[in-house]
Amino acid sequence: MKNIEGGICAVKGIRANGVKQGKNGIAIMVADARQLSSSGVFTRNKVIAAPLIITREALSKGELKAIIANSGCANAFTGKKGIQDAKWMAGLLSKKLECSPDEIGVASTGVIGRYLDKQWLAGHLDEVCDHISSSKEASAACARAIMTTDTTMKEVAVELNNGVRIAGIAKGSGMIEPNMGTMLAFLFTDACLSKKALDVCLKKAVDKSFNMVVVDGDTSTNDMALITATGYSECDEKTFQDGLDHVCISLAKMIAKDGEGATRLIEARVSGARSEADARAAAKTIVRSPLVKTAIYGKDPNWGRVVAAAGYSGAEVDQDRISLKFSGNNKEAVLVDSGKIIEGKLDELKSIMESREILIEVDIGLGENSATAWGCDLTYDYVKINAMYTT
Amino acid sequence: MKNIEGGICAVKGIRANGVKQGKNGIAIMVADARQLSSSGVFTRNKVIAAPLIITREALSKGELKAIIANSGCANAFTGKKGIQDAKWMAGLLSKKLECSPDEIGVASTGVIGRYLDKQWLAGHLDEVCDHISSSKEASAACARAIMTTDTTMKEVAVELNNGVRIAGIAKGSGMIEPNMGTMLAFLFTDACLSKKALDVCLKKAVDKSFNMVVVDGDTSTNDMALITATGYSECDEKTFQDGLDHVCISLAKMIAKDGEGATRLIEARVSGARSEADARAAAKTIVRSPLVKTAIYGKDPNWGRVVAAAGYSGAEVDQDRISLKFSGNNKEAVLVDSGKIIEGKLDELKSIMESREILIEVDIGLGENSATAWGCDLTYDYVKINAMYTT
Repeated sequence: MKNIEGGICAVKGIRANGVKQGKNGIAIMVADARQLSSSGVFTRNKVIAAPLIITREALSKGELKAIIANSGCANAFTGKKGIQDAKWMAGLLSKKLECSPDEIGVASTGVIGRYLDKQWLAGHLDEVCDHISSSKEASAACARAIMTTDTTMKEVAVELNNGVRIAGIAKGSGMIEPNMGTMLAFLFTDACLSKKALDVCLKKAVDKSFNMVVVDGDTSTNDMALITATGYSECDEKTFQDGLDHVCISLAKMIAKDGEGATRLIEARVSGARSEADARAAAKTIVRSPLVKTAIYGKDPNWGRVVAAAGYSGAEVDQDRISLKFSGNNKEAVLVDSGKIIEGKLDELKSIMESREILIEVDIGLGENSATAWGCDLTYDYVKINAMYTT
Repeated sequence: MKNIEGGICAVKGIRANGVKQGKNGIAIMVADARQLSSSGVFTRNKVIAAPLIITREALSKGELKAIIANSGCANAFTGKKGIQDAKWMAGLLSKKLECSPDEIGVASTGVIGRYLDKQWLAGHLDEVCDHISSSKEASAACARAIMTTDTTMKEVAVELNNGVRIAGIAKGSGMIEPNMGTMLAFLFTDACLSKKALDVCLKKAVDKSFNMVVVDGDTSTNDMALITATGYSECDEKTFQDGLDHVCISLAKMIAKDGEGATRLIEARVSGARSEADARAAAKTIVRSPLVKTAIYGKDPNWGRVVAAAGYSGAEVDQDRISLKFSGNNKEAVLVDSGKIIEGKLDELKSIMESREILIEVDIGLGENSATAWGCDLTYDYVKINAMYTT
């Protein structure tokens, strides 16, 4: 497997474009397939946004030939009018592409409880559609168009050893604690896979990647990951799964690193858990803890907060068996070994905390299960960004 | 029921004192009872601090004649040495009082993963013990001695209509999401109640008060609430429960209001839930949401975040039935009525957000159950305080 250029347009059959103007943006992705199949996962928030409802419905009826996404307004908690507006978005693109609205996926991100700015969307659609292409610039324009508080564009493309390509773009920076679904992620491959196989592979990949990212612990109303396969290349499921995992984990780490106001990427690896659920809970709780996140921001060697987080995560934990290690900047510090505090390590830990990427390894010492979660530090800028989001 | 002066020393039979010096502090509370009974609730964090282990054991054997608490070091995640140190604290006070160490409750608060400063504690015990008294100044000194990042002392005393008194002191400002137990709260009454009755009343009161406060969502390793009854006055359980609820809710609100860096108290009242568990989950999730908390800090009328929080709280929710109201500064704004957005209310909401106390009412519209939770806004100062806690 190797990383390649070109973003989602590196995948045979995919064309895209996007435009961003202030807070508003439109992104369009179109698949010209040999054999089309598509799948999606959606937020578990019970307040689910209108575009997710109609996209889930479309996926239950058939495949998605194209996707239209807007930024600036989440079209969430907007009732029947919201559903009509999401259908209107699908209709807008289906007319252009001369296909059925049921073949269009719709996604939105932005403020909750506001109606779509239809005038702005209608006014800019032609501009986007007229320049859809398979260039790498088009993929980048598309990735940029879905950004909100993101500071970096998030795109990944890989070529597997058998020549199959998998690529994706994503957005996400705040309101990030995906649960089953995720922030917005649009994945593409030229592999030829059944809808059923895509469903299985996407769920597995999302569980290992987007569902293990926490920025602030708020699960969005609009989380969604969609995958479209254009069917040009044969690929066995195992090889495909490895590639898709890689793409999703790469995008997930980009999201964690670009968390609102973040200055550091935190990776929490939990091993030795009694069950996989325990490992996942402990890892996510560590990266979710405001106290761990602020300590890392302040380079405060307050490692006790990591142990406390594991303790309240719900995972089975015996404090006499826990081991804890921090790494970063090519250094490592073992702070606890099977429940025993290793003293005299605080200076080493402080120096590790200078690193932009900090790895926290917790061995629970009770079993064979492990999991990894990603997060970021909690900073003044997170507060600033979110104290003034709609104004 | 009326509020009275004097803190915990307003309760017949209670004497106290405390000293605070920099980060370190010792507090002593002694009960001279006609008929002593005591009860406690403890953190659900699986990493549980040493003093809680020995206090729980003492309560299983009998009653607590006195309590010794220190601030500056949590004596948590300190293994066998921590247990020895906590027993040493109990021994120190039991020698002074000429009673058994099993009659002493021990509590600690401060940094996790550090050993107690025994020299400091031993060096200051006499100073505290020699001036134990039943004055209101003694209660205040005791309440101040347990403070860490708290900016205000937290004490409440009430006299019920039948003359019975109930009083308590508490500390807590960060690492606040009590689960079953709570931050440190020491409650006293002159009522004559069995241990069993105290157990029941304390659990009920804690569930309605401390367990409904969230500052940051981190459950401490050291949460504990203890109650001591000196048995001088007869009191029926119903009257006592009402009084104890009032004292605990008052202390809980003080903790929320004094959350680290907080500028605003948030009260979330959820009604119309299918179950009590749903109502509690929704209320706590709203006050826990970093996005709700930052919006309130920034006076940003971004009410959609409240609805999103209710949606991911795990409570059963139908977005077409939710109603939402904000109040504060003697104004109110109905933003959603049975799923319908009421437009043109954002200016009113902005003005409500100027208030120091903001009430958020969510009617889920599905049932008859309700719950109230308290929290605070998330500010630059929360980040500052926690980025530099141990240094």
